[in-house]
Amino acid sequence: MCTFCEIIQGKRGAHKVFKDEFSLAFLDNKPLFLGHTLIVPLNHYETLQDLPQETIGPFFADVQLVARAVEAAMGSDGSFVAINNRVSQSVPHLHVHVVPRRHGDGLKGFFWPRTKYQSEEDAEQVARQIKDKIHQILNTKK
Amino acid sequence: MCTFCEIIQGKRGAHKVFKDEFSLAFLDNKPLFLGHTLIVPLNHYETLQDLPQETIGPFFADVQLVARAVEAAMGSDGSFVAINNRVSQSVPHLHVHVVPRRHGDGLKGFFWPRTKYQSEEDAEQVARQIKDKIHQILNTKK
Repeated sequence: MCTFCEIIQGKRGAHKVFKDEFSLAFLDNKPLFLGHTLIVPLNHYETLQDLPQETIGPFFADVQLVARAVEAAMGSDGSFVAINNRVSQSVPHLHVHVVPRRHGDGLKGFFWPRTKYQSEEDAEQVARQIKDKIHQILNTKK
Repeated sequence: MCTFCEIIQGKRGAHKVFKDEFSLAFLDNKPLFLGHTLIVPLNHYETLQDLPQETIGPFFADVQLVARAVEAAMGSDGSFVAINNRVSQSVPHLHVHVVPRRHGDGLKGFFWPRTKYQSEEDAEQVARQIKDKIHQILNTKK
C-alpha cells in the first residue's frame, strides 16, 4: 500500500487540514515553506492523467479551496500549485502541492534556465505534434 | 488587454495546440523544454482562486488532455503541471504550465531546499490555521 493510501486509511500519521468524499489534504512534512500542503484523491490514482473524468471537477474544486485557505492562513502574497507526473514524483499517488509564496521569498518563477525555439517553423512543428496527439486522443474517446 | 487575452482574440500570434469553449492551449515561447505548453481559460480570470466553480471541471479536464498529449507527442517520461498564483506569475491571466519531463533531464523534483517543522506541535499549529480558514471559507459560502 502506498504512503498516501496509508495516511488516507489512518495507518500513518499526518497533519490533516481537510477531508471530503473526494480528497484529503495534509501538510507536506518537508515543506518548501511552512504551510506547504498536499491534496490527494481518496482513491489511488497514480497521475493526473489517471484521474477519472467525473472526479476532475470535485477534486480541483478542493484544490482551489485549499489554495485559498493556505494563502489566507499563512498570510502569503500568492501560491504555487504543482503536480509532478511520474518524473520527480516521490509517491506514486496523485498529489497536488500547494505552496504559499511571498514576494522576495527567494524562489525564482520558473526556476530553471529556459530554452527557445530555433525558428518559427521549429515551434510550429512541435505545436503540430501536440495538436495531432490531441486529435488522436479525442477521436479515441468517441 | 492582457497578453493572453490578445492571443485568445487573435490580436497576438501564438503556436496554438488546442481550443474548445473553455480553454486555449499554446506553446510557451520560452520553454523549459520543447513542447512546454500553457493552457488558459478563454475568460480572463487572474488566478486559480478566481476560476468560477462551474468551470473548474471543464478547464482541468482540458489540462488533463493537454498533459496526456504533450507527454505522448514529445515522447516524455512524465510531466510537470504547475500554476503560479500572483507571485512569480508573469501574466495576470490564469495559466497552467504543462512541461514534458524526462528521467535525468537535470531538473530536480522540488527544486529548492526544503525546510522542516521544529516540532509536531509547530506542525499541528500550522495545520490548525489552515483548517480553520477552510471552515471559514466553507461557512461563508453557505
